[in-house]
Parts: sequence; structure tokens; C-alpha cells
Amino acid sequence: MITVHNLENSQSFRVIWLLEELGVPYEIRQYKRDPETGLAPVDYRGLHPIGTSPTISDGELVLAETNAIIDYILDKHPSATMRPEAGTPERVRYLFWFHAVPGSFTPLLTDSLIFNMMDSKSPFFIRPLVSLITGKVRASFLEPRLERLFAYIEEELGHSEWIAGSNLTAADTLLGHALILSEVRIGFGDRFPRIKAYLKRVRERPAFLSALERSGGFTPFGS
Amino acid sequence: MITVHNLENSQSFRVIWLLEELGVPYEIRQYKRDPETGLAPVDYRGLHPIGTSPTISDGELVLAETNAIIDYILDKHPSATMRPEAGTPERVRYLFWFHAVPGSFTPLLTDSLIFNMMDSKSPFFIRPLVSLITGKVRASFLEPRLERLFAYIEEELGHSEWIAGSNLTAADTLLGHALILSEVRIGFGDRFPRIKAYLKRVRERPAFLSALERSGGFTPFGS
Repeated sequence: MITVHNLENSQSFRVIWLLEELGVPYEIRQYKRDPETGLAPVDYRGLHPIGTSPTISDGELVLAETNAIIDYILDKHPSATMRPEAGTPERVRYLFWFHAVPGSFTPLLTDSLIFNMMDSKSPFFIRPLVSLITGKVRASFLEPRLERLFAYIEEELGHSEWIAGSNLTAADTLLGHALILSEVRIGFGDRFPRIKAYLKRVRERPAFLSALERSGGFTPFGS
Repeated sequence: MITVHNLENSQSFRVIWLLEELGVPYEIRQYKRDPETGLAPVDYRGLHPIGTSPTISDGELVLAETNAIIDYILDKHPSATMRPEAGTPERVRYLFWFHAVPGSFTPLLTDSLIFNMMDSKSPFFIRPLVSLITGKVRASFLEPRLERLFAYIEEELGHSEWIAGSNLTAADTLLGHALILSEVRIGFGDRFPRIKAYLKRVRERPAFLSALERSGGFTPFGS
């Protein structure tokens, strides 16, 4: 049986949500972060050489990297709704978003968090200067890319209820999570009504609610 | 037939290398960057809503995001050597590296480039201060993660010639390219002899050499 090594407040929520959507049995082992440093505990860091979250184990196998874990789970529990098959109309839209979230979207959200921390954790007397520098990178690099992504997601959600068609796919577990982080780190205001409605649908999924309950919930880091 | 929209000095090299390894017919359309700003030309940016490189087209379809393009090509031209099938021993190692390069490795290399640029493009009188701040993020965030990755790759290359086994896979086209960027942006010195030997094998592949020739080559950005 698959064990999800669930580091609190981490990206492993996405894997738990996927498993709940599939309805397959799994176990959770909980790991608390160090309350002062926010770092993963030593036993978590020893699980896998790259030490990131999520990490799963299945018998002797230990596997990290969200999308590798998703493909591994879907190899074991094939699901044409969660991963559309090659040759179907949903397949290409699925592939784009399944790969665009970790490849293009999440790195921008991580950088957004890094710059928030550079701003808020600098000594106060150089903070205005740090904000000036991070502000330049935000304005020239991060924000235009994020805005293009949000506008494209908003447009895509005009075509179907979920990002690859009428069924929720594994790409939605990635996209839904990234959009929840975006609400906290970037903020949408009233600009993207379809994204707002999409997140409402996400939050009403029984599997999403079970995943929140079993994982102990998550609070996205903002700064 | 697939057309690769090849923005000069961009990540599209990886797709061209994959197509050369598969030996399938394809076309290249070349796009020059603006010599002053380094930006993609307007006709390139109009291809796809997210505007990134690589982008391919195939009839009416326009697709961006390297890993989505790779899966799309391998759906059309199935190859058990380039993408090991579910249930084979190579599959899990393939999945890990295929997803870890864009998910964990490339974002660190991009941040490394952003910090190099923040250092080198700041006005000279605040440059020491900027370097102090970027140096902290490098030391606490970027470098430990990159070092863990390099050490893990070095260890993995002790088990087989290519990253997922005895055959080159699509994961190697991603990993080989990321390691070539790492040579420029981070530098290896003499620390990782297996990575060095791996890159020699990469650079001797006939398909790699054809890709260099047909794409017009690429010079990784360092700063």
C-alpha cells in the first residue's frame, strides 16, 4: 500500500487529494516542521536524497517529485478520467496543464515567496532598498508571466468545467492547489471570475474535503 | 509534420535533440532574439498564450511547455527506449528524472541566473549590498538544493550509463541540457567525475550533434 509521508503545510496535499479522487487505499505518516526554523524534521529529510515534499513509499520504493508520484500512482491505478488516454481530445490539454503547473506556474509562485521573504526578513534599515530591487524583478519578470498565466487559465475555463474537459483530471489537482497559493501570494481581486468559480468547485469536491481532513489541512505560506 | 519554433539560445534545443534521437521528420522555423533586449520577436510571442520556448505546431495545434511537447511527440511516436513503459524496471527512474528536471532542477538554475543578473546589473554603488542579499539566498536556499541534486545524479550514474538505465531516454535530453547549463552557471570543478563522463557521452551522440547543427547551436546564458 502507498504511504504518503505528509510534511505539514507542504505540497503533499496534492497527492492526498489525488488518492482521495481515485478512492484507492493509502496510509499517511505525519511529520511536523520545526516550529522555529520551519524546516522538515531529520527523519523526513532522510527519506529521499532530494528531501522534498511530497515523498511516498510503496514497499521498498521511495519516490519524490509530485508529477512522478502522480504518474506512478496512475500507472498502478489507470484512470481515463484522471489521466486522459493518448488520442483523446482531452489528452493534449491535460498534458499542457499537467506539465505547465510544475514547469511554469509553481516556480513563479516559489520566486514570489522568496521575494516576499527577502523583503520582510531584511534588516529594517535596508528594507526600502531591497524592496526596490525585488520590485524590479517582480515587475519585469514575475508579474508579466503570472498575469499571462492567469489570463490564459481564465480563458481556458471558458471552454469547460475542469481544465482539460468535463472531468476533473490530475492536472486539476495541481492547478487548483497552485491557484489557492496564488490567492495568498498574489491576490486576484475581482479580475478572474471563472478562476473564482473554479476554486469554489474545487473546494466543494468531496475528495478535496476528505483530503483536507485526513492530511490535517494546509495553510499556504505567504511570506 | 511537427514544426519546432526555434527561438535562438532557448530551451527548444531539447525538443530538437529528442526528434533527432527518434529519427522522425520535422521542420524548424528560426526566430532571432532582439539583439538589445534579448526578448523574443513579436511573431514568436504571438504563437502561444504563455509565450515561452519551446513551442511547436502540428497542423492546427500549437503546444508549449517542454514536457508536454515530449509526451505529445512520444504519444505520436511511441518509443519504449525513449519513454519506458509502465511496469518496466526503468519506468520509475524515468518518471523521477523526467519530472525532477523541470520540477526541481531547472527552477534552481533559473533562480541562479536571476541572482547573477541582479548582481551584475545593479548600479555599481549598491552592488556590494545586492550581492550580500542574493548571497544569503544562494547560501541558504539555492546552493544546498543544487548540491543535493548533483550528488544524487552522481550517485545514480554509478548504476547505469544513462539516467534511467542502459538506454538514453527523454529524461536524458532534459538532464543533459540542465547539466550543460549548470557547467556555465554553477561550475563543477573536479567534484563529479561521473557527471563529467556523462556529459562527454551526451556530446558524442550523433543525434545531439545533428540537433546542434540543425538548430544553429545554443550558448547557455550565464549572467
